[in-house]
Amino acid sequence: MNIGVLASGSGTNLQAIMEACEKGEIAGRVAVVISDREEAFALKRAAKKGIPAHFLNPKGYKDREAYDGAAVALLQEYRVEVVALAGFMRLVSPYFVRMYPNKIMNIHPALLPAFPGTHGVEDALAYGVKVSGCTVHFVDEGLDTGPIILQAAVEVKDDDTAESLHQRIHKEEYRLYPRALDLFARGKIQLEGRRCIIHE
Amino acid sequence: MNIGVLASGSGTNLQAIMEACEKGEIAGRVAVVISDREEAFALKRAAKKGIPAHFLNPKGYKDREAYDGAAVALLQEYRVEVVALAGFMRLVSPYFVRMYPNKIMNIHPALLPAFPGTHGVEDALAYGVKVSGCTVHFVDEGLDTGPIILQAAVEVKDDDTAESLHQRIHKEEYRLYPRALDLFARGKIQLEGRRCIIHE
Repeated sequence: MNIGVLASGSGTNLQAIMEACEKGEIAGRVAVVISDREEAFALKRAAKKGIPAHFLNPKGYKDREAYDGAAVALLQEYRVEVVALAGFMRLVSPYFVRMYPNKIMNIHPALLPAFPGTHGVEDALAYGVKVSGCTVHFVDEGLDTGPIILQAAVEVKDDDTAESLHQRIHKEEYRLYPRALDLFARGKIQLEGRRCIIHE
Repeated sequence: MNIGVLASGSGTNLQAIMEACEKGEIAGRVAVVISDREEAFALKRAAKKGIPAHFLNPKGYKDREAYDGAAVALLQEYRVEVVALAGFMRLVSPYFVRMYPNKIMNIHPALLPAFPGTHGVEDALAYGVKVSGCTVHFVDEGLDTGPIILQAAVEVKDDDTAESLHQRIHKEEYRLYPRALDLFARGKIQLEGRRCIIHE
């Protein structure tokens, strides 16, 4: 299975996915990495592994749909079958979602539906929860609202900062995201309404 | 510490609290049990342990505030210092909350702020989460919005029904609620804004 990864930042989830592919823990390979930020370290991580890495400059496109059109064209060029958003800071357009229905995954650093949006870790801390975690889900047209594939719980400690909590959540992410991609690659995820049934 | 328990149903959390008190796992005792339903089995459970059990009929009061006034009078009669809602199906009034500020606890069968309200288990299943759990929190004037004292995560299985999931959550509740009451009795819970810091 050809995986396309979209990332805006340092790409630690991308790293975990690439390494899991190398170890045979995902029945697939990363075919292309796309970033909306030229300086994203994710691009360097991909290049280091010999994986095509493309900076797609948002300034070159008149709106989100046009940008996503270019991204989809690139993904198609590399025959991508599943798209993994890994710290991709742009909301994908309904057009993008329709092009890859239930074939775009995202990872979120909270137990959705709690604390959606860009500050999941900070929001959980501010609320005062004692348990948070991370969620791998299919992307639909809403913000972090798609069907949940896998979740892992992480204890929140009283002396946690956003950094220390995020670090503990990241550890679970690096385990969870490859697992979700492998389940998908092996056809083990069945959607029933908005529930994902895992056939293992 | 004198604990007052309010319950509408079978009272399994009440049972767990009473037994934990007997074993010395809570630095307190159940001083009185109040129910808004005459046939609540919770009343029988209390009577069996020799604990005063009162049915307070909502029909005898013109509104929620009047009802809560009678409940507070009863609690004061038994010198109750902390109120534990245990399957109590009435929303307590702002008056009640003001009479026991951060001294009323509730247990909820989901990881708040996800799935508040009366169908936490069913709502979590319908959403398709992979992790749910339970929450002990202080009661404020909102619906399940008060500061969180303790939470425990519970795995949601693909073949779970509301019953099977609720059963697994209940097990955690019977451990969590006595622990929260004991922490409170021993003065180990410190509120910082809406975060509960546990000093253990």
